[in-house]
Amino acid sequence: MKDMSSLGLRFERGKLFVLDQQLLPHKEVWIECKSPQEMVDLIRRLAVRGAPLIGVAAALELARYHERGASPAAVREAAGMLRAARPTAVNLMAAVDRMLGADDLARMAEKIFDEDVELCENMARHGELLIKDGDRILTHCNTGGLATVGIGTALGVIRKAFENGKRIHVYVDETRPLLQGARLTAWELGKLGIPFTLISDNMAGMLMAQKKIDIAFVGSDRIAANGDAANKIGTYSVAVLAHYHRVPFYVVAPYTTVDKNCPTGADIPIEERNADEVRGASGPRDCAVYNPAFDVTPRKLITALVLDTGLA
Amino acid sequence: MKDMSSLGLRFERGKLFVLDQQLLPHKEVWIECKSPQEMVDLIRRLAVRGAPLIGVAAALELARYHERGASPAAVREAAGMLRAARPTAVNLMAAVDRMLGADDLARMAEKIFDEDVELCENMARHGELLIKDGDRILTHCNTGGLATVGIGTALGVIRKAFENGKRIHVYVDETRPLLQGARLTAWELGKLGIPFTLISDNMAGMLMAQKKIDIAFVGSDRIAANGDAANKIGTYSVAVLAHYHRVPFYVVAPYTTVDKNCPTGADIPIEERNADEVRGASGPRDCAVYNPAFDVTPRKLITALVLDTGLA
Repeated sequence: MKDMSSLGLRFERGKLFVLDQQLLPHKEVWIECKSPQEMVDLIRRLAVRGAPLIGVAAALELARYHERGASPAAVREAAGMLRAARPTAVNLMAAVDRMLGADDLARMAEKIFDEDVELCENMARHGELLIKDGDRILTHCNTGGLATVGIGTALGVIRKAFENGKRIHVYVDETRPLLQGARLTAWELGKLGIPFTLISDNMAGMLMAQKKIDIAFVGSDRIAANGDAANKIGTYSVAVLAHYHRVPFYVVAPYTTVDKNCPTGADIPIEERNADEVRGASGPRDCAVYNPAFDVTPRKLITALVLDTGLA
Repeated sequence: MKDMSSLGLRFERGKLFVLDQQLLPHKEVWIECKSPQEMVDLIRRLAVRGAPLIGVAAALELARYHERGASPAAVREAAGMLRAARPTAVNLMAAVDRMLGADDLARMAEKIFDEDVELCENMARHGELLIKDGDRILTHCNTGGLATVGIGTALGVIRKAFENGKRIHVYVDETRPLLQGARLTAWELGKLGIPFTLISDNMAGMLMAQKKIDIAFVGSDRIAANGDAANKIGTYSVAVLAHYHRVPFYVVAPYTTVDKNCPTGADIPIEERNADEVRGASGPRDCAVYNPAFDVTPRKLITALVLDTGLA
């Protein structure tokens, strides 16, 4: 397999490395992934996260495993394990299924990688037309170069507008409980030099009431056939607030996020994660916690989907 | 001045103690307050917080200061300093002004303390009638025995319903950035044995969409003459979400929270606090942050105000 690299993933001379996203922004630690089980663990603990990225990472690991001499049966078993590592993001399942159907695993992994880069470019090209000079943009979670192997989904759109000379300002939801906005999106925007302000999730409503948000972009982990979109917990609240304040609300995702076999948002499985993620360092040590990792935004609250093929 | 005590405030044999609410729930540390300046600092760093409580605490400190021999001029100066310790909560200003107009400071401080206990009882009595057996209740921030010297405002209502035998379940917004819900409300509900589940603020919308919230109660730091209510940041988002999902949304506050000199919510000063509160331990160390401590919910989103005098 050829060498490939992105902001959070590297394949170099037969070795696969991932940037541990749980340690960002304070530490940049690259971990070598030496087995499918290790990749499953990395995905489960969100060292590798972002719906498109985990799909590509799983594909690369399967190709690497095969290259190292794993039998077809072992690759199939690994594929099943990887496929189940996170239940909500469908990109993972789509990528694994493409690998299972491929004759040449290395070629297919390379294709999935290169395609992800191109899908990001296409989404960004379509989406950035929605952004006007001077726009103040709200985003939730992380959807950039860390969530894909390209420039990102929602954050790719925002980056493209900035690179095209539009004077924009991004309001970044910190995105509780795991702070992907505060830790990852703020890190990416800082590197890119895009002006932004960090807020806690519960401030977005006030900003909209003050007419300080012109447009909102988020990503998605799975889009049902009817257009309902699952994304990081808190996205639904942003959508309701945007609807109430008449702020256009866009979901940006590649075709690999669309699940035609899933009729509606109600059919998307929602991963519930460990209570300690919410309890954190300051909270009580032993109370009941509800910690769904995702929520579903119904199609009617989405102004449009920004896909790699255009607006839908 | 007679001895008085509440969950977070104690006056004993001439000494004034406050429970440091920034250290809860992991440490219960009582601090002796020995000067008005110390009380200002305790209020500013939220060791003492909750609109009614800071009013009572300031009154007790002024009476204590006077008892220790401070001159009328010194008491007046201290009053001015205390009055400005937090700009949004009007209870503080109301309590200080009552002290300034009193002939007998000890008697007035005792009256303010006893009255706060009674106001809580009255709000709870009126408010608990709104709660039905089996209700699942959403609350934001902390409005209980730590925020008042009685049983609380919104949380007092909830407590009363529980004590009256209604089977309720409370969903507690953790309340970023300072986690008054996760740290204080969870602690109080645990002590009282009231069933609850902790959530991050951005999960409330999803719960409402799942029809898991029947009613919402919050407190207030200042209610304008037109009924707009300032409260902890995030309250406005809860109100918009409740409106969208047709969940009744009640603001519980004593008459000391109503500011007849403030025509509308737009006239309520909103304290903006330090960026580090949002950046926290995990976020970036040096990015721009917006950190308003409060937001304003317009009257039209409030089903009713629950005052000590009844519903309004």
